[in-house]
Amino acid sequence: MTKASTKPSQIASRARFRPPAVPQIDVRGFWGGRVDAVAARTADILYDRCVEARMLEQIDPDRPPPGVVIPFHSMSPTGDEFTGATVTTQMFWDSDWGKTIETAAYSLYRRRNPELEKKIDAVIDIYEKLQQPDGYLSSWYQRIQPGLRWTNLRDCHELYCAGHLIEGAVAYYQATGKRKLLDVLCRYADHIGETFGPEPGKKKGYCGHEEIELALVKLGRATGRQKYLDLARYFIDQRGQQPHYFDEEARARGADPKNFHFKTYEYNQSHKPVREQDKVVGHAVRAMYLYSGMADVATEFGDDTLRVALDRLWDDLTGKNLYLTGGLGPSAANEGFTADYDLPNDTAYAETCAAVALVFWASRMLGMGPNARYADVMEQALYNGSISGLSMDGSRFFYENPLESRGKHHRWIWHRCPCCPPNIGRMVASIGSYFYGQSEDAIAVHLYGDNTGRFEIAGGKVTLTQETRYPWDGVVAITVETDALLPFKLHLRIPRWCRKAALSVNDETIELSGVSENGYATIERVWKRGDTIRLDLEMEIRRVYANPNVRQNLGRVALARGPVLYCAEATDNAADLQQLTLPADGAVTATDEPTLLCGVVSLCAEGEVETAAGWNGELYRSAPPTRTKTSFKAIPYFAWDNREPGQMLVWLRSSTA
Amino acid sequence: MTKASTKPSQIASRARFRPPAVPQIDVRGFWGGRVDAVAARTADILYDRCVEARMLEQIDPDRPPPGVVIPFHSMSPTGDEFTGATVTTQMFWDSDWGKTIETAAYSLYRRRNPELEKKIDAVIDIYEKLQQPDGYLSSWYQRIQPGLRWTNLRDCHELYCAGHLIEGAVAYYQATGKRKLLDVLCRYADHIGETFGPEPGKKKGYCGHEEIELALVKLGRATGRQKYLDLARYFIDQRGQQPHYFDEEARARGADPKNFHFKTYEYNQSHKPVREQDKVVGHAVRAMYLYSGMADVATEFGDDTLRVALDRLWDDLTGKNLYLTGGLGPSAANEGFTADYDLPNDTAYAETCAAVALVFWASRMLGMGPNARYADVMEQALYNGSISGLSMDGSRFFYENPLESRGKHHRWIWHRCPCCPPNIGRMVASIGSYFYGQSEDAIAVHLYGDNTGRFEIAGGKVTLTQETRYPWDGVVAITVETDALLPFKLHLRIPRWCRKAALSVNDETIELSGVSENGYATIERVWKRGDTIRLDLEMEIRRVYANPNVRQNLGRVALARGPVLYCAEATDNAADLQQLTLPADGAVTATDEPTLLCGVVSLCAEGEVETAAGWNGELYRSAPPTRTKTSFKAIPYFAWDNREPGQMLVWLRSSTA
Repeated sequence: MTKASTKPSQIASRARFRPPAVPQIDVRGFWGGRVDAVAARTADILYDRCVEARMLEQIDPDRPPPGVVIPFHSMSPTGDEFTGATVTTQMFWDSDWGKTIETAAYSLYRRRNPELEKKIDAVIDIYEKLQQPDGYLSSWYQRIQPGLRWTNLRDCHELYCAGHLIEGAVAYYQATGKRKLLDVLCRYADHIGETFGPEPGKKKGYCGHEEIELALVKLGRATGRQKYLDLARYFIDQRGQQPHYFDEEARARGADPKNFHFKTYEYNQSHKPVREQDKVVGHAVRAMYLYSGMADVATEFGDDTLRVALDRLWDDLTGKNLYLTGGLGPSAANEGFTADYDLPNDTAYAETCAAVALVFWASRMLGMGPNARYADVMEQALYNGSISGLSMDGSRFFYENPLESRGKHHRWIWHRCPCCPPNIGRMVASIGSYFYGQSEDAIAVHLYGDNTGRFEIAGGKVTLTQETRYPWDGVVAITVETDALLPFKLHLRIPRWCRKAALSVNDETIELSGVSENGYATIERVWKRGDTIRLDLEMEIRRVYANPNVRQNLGRVALARGPVLYCAEATDNAADLQQLTLPADGAVTATDEPTLLCGVVSLCAEGEVETAAGWNGELYRSAPPTRTKTSFKAIPYFAWDNREPGQMLVWLRSSTA
Repeated sequence: MTKASTKPSQIASRARFRPPAVPQIDVRGFWGGRVDAVAARTADILYDRCVEARMLEQIDPDRPPPGVVIPFHSMSPTGDEFTGATVTTQMFWDSDWGKTIETAAYSLYRRRNPELEKKIDAVIDIYEKLQQPDGYLSSWYQRIQPGLRWTNLRDCHELYCAGHLIEGAVAYYQATGKRKLLDVLCRYADHIGETFGPEPGKKKGYCGHEEIELALVKLGRATGRQKYLDLARYFIDQRGQQPHYFDEEARARGADPKNFHFKTYEYNQSHKPVREQDKVVGHAVRAMYLYSGMADVATEFGDDTLRVALDRLWDDLTGKNLYLTGGLGPSAANEGFTADYDLPNDTAYAETCAAVALVFWASRMLGMGPNARYADVMEQALYNGSISGLSMDGSRFFYENPLESRGKHHRWIWHRCPCCPPNIGRMVASIGSYFYGQSEDAIAVHLYGDNTGRFEIAGGKVTLTQETRYPWDGVVAITVETDALLPFKLHLRIPRWCRKAALSVNDETIELSGVSENGYATIERVWKRGDTIRLDLEMEIRRVYANPNVRQNLGRVALARGPVLYCAEATDNAADLQQLTLPADGAVTATDEPTLLCGVVSLCAEGEVETAAGWNGELYRSAPPTRTKTSFKAIPYFAWDNREPGQMLVWLRSSTA
């Protein structure tokens, strides 16, 4: 939960850890349940809602495009429009198809669904049909605003849409073996490479909403084509250079560059070259996607200058601008960052997409080597502020994830800017790939949870099976199966929230202090079939306090256990939640509740409550309120608003702080 | 500061206490300084700003009217418009002239200012010239929207403007002896009486912004004409009756009654007949003006049914909806009330006009007899949330009066809806009339402060001279001078904030318990020249706590001394104010500071501070913040933002509550 004490990524290291493909990992247990909800419900819902929003009509060249075009300037940051007209088309709908395809792909790997597969195949056929002979592919610029391609990279999500379609294509290929969409997107990526780059005559632009960078790295890794990695690096290097591309592009359109809705290029992180950036600024999802792409490029090219910038940005985010949930971006106005330590709870924007994107960034920082500094935050965002965005049954969604609700904040069926539903869908459906990282001679275990992972390493095959009730229990048993004697390093993360951990291999205790670096214990040996590892992570209930610069949390305390943050919800508690106080020395106990909210551990805290009883209708008086003893219940934050609607509170009042 | 324990106004009583005219009272000391600031600066500023806002052009029939008309529906509640066009005329500008004239009148009584008097005389000449032969007088409907008079009472402030001009006329007559404006307004009031009333053929309407009711009572008292009192009662009685006048009026205009910007008639307190109302709702100033008019009518007509309703409304306001400053109306959206106990500090609207209007209401409740239940709240609003709206030098104004500022809230030179500056101006300039109330056989002393009051009672003349440093010291010496032996009752308020009071007449102690009722001690005797009263009100520093239903103040405490509420301001304190905590047992000392902020008593509190020192850049951790001892300074709330700009905080964190 707290900032890792481990060191920034070691500059000298050239280790390159890549995540496994999703089909390499079979998850069970906690994440198995979440993936099943996505595969059983969310994946179908995403497709159906896209169709209801008339997205098929936008992409299909054989159908008339939907009607009303909303000019950009009349849109709010979320894409909701101000004028009252009905939105029936959006410039970023290719991205929603891309994420919907990606979610479907991983879901199809999880669970046969011939009907959904047929529908997605049909969407892919449409995209193949839509693609122009030169490889260009954008439903917006081909169908809604023809003739204007590559004229407004700043505002119009053109390369962003390409990136999401690429991610969808890679996922569909990896999960189903079908490569039609991958081929379509390779042709498009080739066209983009012919259009943008350092060579004379090519455009020197980059996208106003980052995404293409990380997508090109993914495509390069999936296809083995270096040119896609090079193009990703070009977009990263070019961002924020002078003369500023968005200025020049605006003038070329006959527009005044100053007439930019969001005023400052901090909004899209092009205010300065990326290596000079040291503050997380602007639109939170854009920032996280940029840093994800930077981390990928740093990993693939061993670029230490990017690493240095990324570590500065990491410190700025995790030291001053991150909610305890792993949520980020407090303001609705720019869907992003404001001022250091400005982390209001009830008005927190903390978009689901932003926490999901932080998981992306953190996981990519692990490409430069195992380091709990990043993995701890990845886990924090995974178990709290990201999956809070999806209802337990996989059918409803949060766009904003506040840490306090007075009872009016509830999940959506859909959103006019439907970025979050498919983003949380694809993240959950691909969770397996976040569990591990693999280099030439090492496997890193970043996350714990019941699962089986299959790897090829040191010329052989190895299967790792984790048996555990994590995150509800800290005991993890890992069984190694190999087809031969295999020498490799196994890095095991020791979460920073854990104060006492024990490790053994084949029942032989290993002193953690002797083998630990950057929050990971490393076991280097020749592994053989049947080797067993046991990791025992003591899972105490913790009180968490915020830095006193966070004014909203002064005098407040939060409860956490393992990676899971807790909250009080009205349905479990009689009092107004703000009237509850938690003494520093009050007992808090954990209870297994297998039937509550798909099975959680709940907390019961001894506390006190201040009520208006005895005030005789007085509004003010000289005697302080009296307190009476009470106990209250807390549930995991991610599971709130799945029962009766009501108040919710993460940061409880502390009666001693 | 706290809700009075005294009983609601005694239904059976028929006592009728009227306030003295302003020229009867000469204030010195604390209020003398405030009145001098208004007379020396504010009064001139008000006139100048009205002229700058082109208000003269609107009212003068010999000049072309100013240009742009902003349709009502494009205005925000404050009269700011949304479209970006320049506002050069407003339908409520006659009210600003009315209040400006009223402020000037009382200021001219205080301090000769021939230049200002000449200017105001000229404005009065213009109004005389503008008045139509039938008596009608409205610069808006004569000059900007001719032909539409009495077609939209709901939205267009027509009778409201009349009311403020009447108040200005009465004041100018009382302060200068000039009756030209009074005659003009009597003719207009006569016209209104011919237009509205229960008689067949007359309109059954009333104003969407109350004010005419209390103004007509004032006019009736000043002229001795009962018909004005009767008309005031008619407007009160008619309000909220069915069929609803605003519905019918809208239909007569060809409009849909449902198409009302503020949705509900609660906004203007016409949602039900006034005697059935039991919740303070809607626009706060409108509500206070209505209740003021109701109280005046209850007093003048001995109407117990109104008293009962007023006491219910009083309980609702003071028990659930009043800031500790005496401010009210937390929401900017309706400039008014929201939900019970919804009293946010940093976003408090708490318009200066609303606290001023509460002073009006509370003072009028005293018309039904001395009762600290009302006088305590009048004093609370006077010393805190109303005069906070005027800078110490009388030149700048708050529209909103929050109880917490992060450093961005500052006084205005002017406002496009300039209601507050002349409202606080006229209240301060007429403060003397709030000190006392007089019935046939009694004088009530509601407020303490250095002053001399002249009264006629029991067939003779009496002068009361208060000598005191109140509100900085609780010792009050009152000297009685009479021209003969005069029998009358003197009611002396014992403020509820005072835990220990002592009273003597001519050095003879009077047991308070034997002579006190409803928070007033009554001395009934035959008074003679030279009688002296000494009242000793112990002025302890008090900690004040809010009802736990006020979620924003849970765990917080405020400091008060006598009637004065305190706040911490950044310029006096090094730490972030939210990082300060005040222990329940920490010492707080008072210091006389004759050169600070025109002379105040400041407080110094022993407290603790939590800073980020020792956090090593961590955003969250398991150890609570450490506290170090500190002391901090607090100044009177009304005097904040008169020095270096910065944070301000009323409700300090309590380290035990």
